[in-house]
Amino acid sequence: MPQPLPFHKEGLLYLKITPPNGGFFYYIMKTMDQNYLQNLRHSCAHLLAKAVIELWPDAKNAIGPAITNGFYQDFDLGDIKISESDLPKIEGKMRAILKNWKPFEEKEVNLKEAEKLFVWNPYKVELAKEFAKAGKKLTVNNPGDFLDLCKGNHCKDPKNELKNFKLLSIAGAYWRGDEKNKMLTRIYGTYFPTKEELDKHLWQLEESKKRDHRKLGKELELFLISEQVGPGLPIFLPKGTIIKDLIEGYLTKVKKENGYVFVWSPHIARSKIYHTSKHWGKYEAMFNPMKLDKEEYVLKPMNCPHHFQVYLNKPRSYKDLPFRISENGTVYRNEKSGEVSGLVRVRAVTIDDTHTVLRLDQISDELEKVLILIKGIFDRFGFSDYKARVSVSDSKTPEKYLGSREAWEKAEASIKAIAEKLFKDASVGIGEAAFYGPKIDVLVKDSLGREWQLSTVQLDYNQPENFNMTYVDEKGKDVRPAILHIAMVGSIERFIGILIEHYAGVFPLWLSPIQVEIIPISDKHLKYSQEIKNLLANDGFRAELNKENKTIGYKIRQSALKKVPFMIIIGDKEIESYKVNKVYKVSVRTREGKDLGMMDIIKFKALLKAKIEKYL
Amino acid sequence: MPQPLPFHKEGLLYLKITPPNGGFFYYIMKTMDQNYLQNLRHSCAHLLAKAVIELWPDAKNAIGPAITNGFYQDFDLGDIKISESDLPKIEGKMRAILKNWKPFEEKEVNLKEAEKLFVWNPYKVELAKEFAKAGKKLTVNNPGDFLDLCKGNHCKDPKNELKNFKLLSIAGAYWRGDEKNKMLTRIYGTYFPTKEELDKHLWQLEESKKRDHRKLGKELELFLISEQVGPGLPIFLPKGTIIKDLIEGYLTKVKKENGYVFVWSPHIARSKIYHTSKHWGKYEAMFNPMKLDKEEYVLKPMNCPHHFQVYLNKPRSYKDLPFRISENGTVYRNEKSGEVSGLVRVRAVTIDDTHTVLRLDQISDELEKVLILIKGIFDRFGFSDYKARVSVSDSKTPEKYLGSREAWEKAEASIKAIAEKLFKDASVGIGEAAFYGPKIDVLVKDSLGREWQLSTVQLDYNQPENFNMTYVDEKGKDVRPAILHIAMVGSIERFIGILIEHYAGVFPLWLSPIQVEIIPISDKHLKYSQEIKNLLANDGFRAELNKENKTIGYKIRQSALKKVPFMIIIGDKEIESYKVNKVYKVSVRTREGKDLGMMDIIKFKALLKAKIEKYL
Repeated sequence: MPQPLPFHKEGLLYLKITPPNGGFFYYIMKTMDQNYLQNLRHSCAHLLAKAVIELWPDAKNAIGPAITNGFYQDFDLGDIKISESDLPKIEGKMRAILKNWKPFEEKEVNLKEAEKLFVWNPYKVELAKEFAKAGKKLTVNNPGDFLDLCKGNHCKDPKNELKNFKLLSIAGAYWRGDEKNKMLTRIYGTYFPTKEELDKHLWQLEESKKRDHRKLGKELELFLISEQVGPGLPIFLPKGTIIKDLIEGYLTKVKKENGYVFVWSPHIARSKIYHTSKHWGKYEAMFNPMKLDKEEYVLKPMNCPHHFQVYLNKPRSYKDLPFRISENGTVYRNEKSGEVSGLVRVRAVTIDDTHTVLRLDQISDELEKVLILIKGIFDRFGFSDYKARVSVSDSKTPEKYLGSREAWEKAEASIKAIAEKLFKDASVGIGEAAFYGPKIDVLVKDSLGREWQLSTVQLDYNQPENFNMTYVDEKGKDVRPAILHIAMVGSIERFIGILIEHYAGVFPLWLSPIQVEIIPISDKHLKYSQEIKNLLANDGFRAELNKENKTIGYKIRQSALKKVPFMIIIGDKEIESYKVNKVYKVSVRTREGKDLGMMDIIKFKALLKAKIEKYL
Repeated sequence: MPQPLPFHKEGLLYLKITPPNGGFFYYIMKTMDQNYLQNLRHSCAHLLAKAVIELWPDAKNAIGPAITNGFYQDFDLGDIKISESDLPKIEGKMRAILKNWKPFEEKEVNLKEAEKLFVWNPYKVELAKEFAKAGKKLTVNNPGDFLDLCKGNHCKDPKNELKNFKLLSIAGAYWRGDEKNKMLTRIYGTYFPTKEELDKHLWQLEESKKRDHRKLGKELELFLISEQVGPGLPIFLPKGTIIKDLIEGYLTKVKKENGYVFVWSPHIARSKIYHTSKHWGKYEAMFNPMKLDKEEYVLKPMNCPHHFQVYLNKPRSYKDLPFRISENGTVYRNEKSGEVSGLVRVRAVTIDDTHTVLRLDQISDELEKVLILIKGIFDRFGFSDYKARVSVSDSKTPEKYLGSREAWEKAEASIKAIAEKLFKDASVGIGEAAFYGPKIDVLVKDSLGREWQLSTVQLDYNQPENFNMTYVDEKGKDVRPAILHIAMVGSIERFIGILIEHYAGVFPLWLSPIQVEIIPISDKHLKYSQEIKNLLANDGFRAELNKENKTIGYKIRQSALKKVPFMIIIGDKEIESYKVNKVYKVSVRTREGKDLGMMDIIKFKALLKAKIEKYL
């Protein structure tokens, strides 16, 4: 499990301190202003430029901006070849320079002066000319004795402020991002104001790399991306399919318990349905349509219009609402080949989709129920840190929003109240609502502290108009309902990708594709092992028998690598015991290496059952 | 439940006779030669023509062929309007004519004679001219006193042989099927050699109409066809989705118990994968491709190539085979709008698909296992009458088939042996095999005696070549495996359509979307009823509470119409009993109208559980 980590909240950084004499306390500091943080990172890029030029005097530095979590600096290295093994050397040089690095002195120059100062560096000259042409100020700075041209904005006390940096990687990058230009060498680095923050980030990077779901997905045989089928179109392998089915099954179960009904809809529709929904021409991720019988059909990019057909299938009364139509429905989005990745960004997206048709007076109650359900789901998957983001309309521009101001204000007030009631961390984005209704997103932190937006609950006054949906009220009058578009975990593919990294592939027992691996010590224990396997399989446990002709040590190590929660070792001892007592005995070890000793199979099954029932 | 019906087997007709004094016996007769049966039906068409012309002398008969189960006759009725209410009158006239109907006398004529004889009937003249031009014989016949022109082939003794006919319906039909021609009136009739066969057929027609899955699907709210989504693209409604999930769940369960693994694959692929599989350009039901990133993608028309990617994901050893890759995978086929219907012929087809990769020496064993599994599945759904059809190669044209003659002969011999061993009724079609391997189909009879082909097990030596699939044998050598393409029930949509008609919507308890309906006698019994509902729902039973403000009699009738297996009636008596004993009591009735009296809820749940566990 991860160590307790520093975390940010409301502009404060919390550091958990564990003194040697036990206990712990939080050291809380005000975190950096984000603009000043950018100055610090940008300053690191200058430091990097100087270090590289000191090491390789022929190097010419190009641009060096601050980026999320760090900075980079581009270089034209001419014939010099460097690799990531050079990074420690460069870092060492940076630290040596930093000791005597003077504060930045920004000085305005004219183009002529700049051309003269940077005669050795065509990149700076090109930038200087461009800045001058655009009427921008030309600034040079020379902290220490390193002259550089840049847009300005640096830190105040480099020597003391720039300590917590780290170089990360090297990549190629075309000058100005244009492939017609020369390929430069880009060095990436990270910087944080405190060592704790830097360490956390480095740990996250390291862990993320180890847990990369694309890597683990391959190692654990969860899914594959086939060149023949195409990018962004993962095929779930048998073990991945077990996880997918368990997740969908769990979501379906809790939704059914909460009054949701399930439907199944095809993956295509007549194009015209998206004219009715008014997505046509506006929704960019739609695939090209297909002609059939002189008509156009298209892959569905969302499930809503299909679900509305279910509502429209017969007259509905006020008593039938809320009507919660659910489906784990696969939709198709034409993401570019270059933009798809693993399970997190795909073209075949299975949404845990619900469209709840409801009366306006039911919005508040229903929202609260939905959000409680969502929190329960996150708890189930071990996400304990979540927050809500409410997107509301801007009252200064009421003309931008569909429906009465009164309805909006009422709905927004109740969404805000519910968000505050249910979430310790709830924020409001004014003017962030879509024209057709306010929404609430739920974001979770995974075990690495990375934040993911998973749930969206979107209120919609528009589609009931587009599809002419009504219900009959107490007085027999036709009334327009509202709709909640609900995705609790969002894309199932993406959720599985996140879970793989969240658990680092060490799935809880209930989600493990194989729950028990049975390892006979030698071939003479195979028959008894098979009997054990059958006993477990008959009770619905996912057991696998390892028939490999390898040493017991090797098989135990392999099983641990496969992250199978329990191993059963079968040898003479277990079989002898059976012969004497006619009770099946098994020796059990956990994937963490704990030896639970020999036990009755009944007891072992009870142990498994108890854990699975609690979703452990 | 259906009455015992006459059935055909091996050219014999079996009639079950139930004497008044109890017991039963079978009356067995040799059934008709199929060609002679066509003569009889064609003769009926003449009889129909004469009757109509006698009733409406201006009517002109066009063609009148025999068809499956009967015959039709087209008429130009000029200004005369007839409807199906006229059919009894026409039938009466036919019976009156039949009494004195003489045997057919066929007489050859030349075109001139024909033109003269049929000067009143331009259709016959047009046909006569065409026959003459094609050098065909012109034959007239005049049984009784009715002169007709036709292709010949009539029955011998019309008066005695033609008794068992029945007119069925009227439709419009263009002369010669061409919409540029005049619309004629087509009268359909049926004919069988025996009254028993006719009665069975009429009963089947009547029952089929009552059970029509399109009608029941609507009444029972199982699925809908939406104009906006498109023809052939059914959406399963909540109740239909429960049935679909239960069927897929059952199939998945038994397959998993038998060593099948499940995968999930997307619904599109790069077009090029179907070049590899060599379906491109040959498989007509493929949708048009879609362009994306300068590449072509297409809706998958079958799951095979996706499943092969799973096999190809890593090296496989002889020990890994048979490798059984399964998926309830939805494929898309571009059937014409006019050809799709209900669930039986659709564009979105979910196949219970398996691709088993296996060694040649495993074919025989695996085939036997598959067919035993298939038989078990049919038994589960109450299909007790099934037969096998083996399609083998033609040894006279060995060049037409891929792979060695020896492999074919061995495989065919084992398929035939297994079919004969497992099926009382197994037939062999020589030359019916595809070029890439022999296959076996399983056909079942539903409760109406109608035959449906559901399963196909196709051996394939070709795709392992196309996809370069191999395994490593005992000696470390790469060897080409074979593949079994297996669909056990075929299209899930079609299977559900067949099941709706097979059960006439009266699903067994385990498949019923609602298993128990709870009916409170009045509003004051609502709270207790809700408690009962929760008790049932908590144990996983599908219970629904009827809150309608209607009389108890009405609600009971409605529940029976919805074909809900059990009704629970809650009134004062049940609540009083609870107050005294603190044990929940319920009064139970079955959908067949049987009153099971008041019982403890525990007992009722046990009753449900016992039935469901037995798939009753």
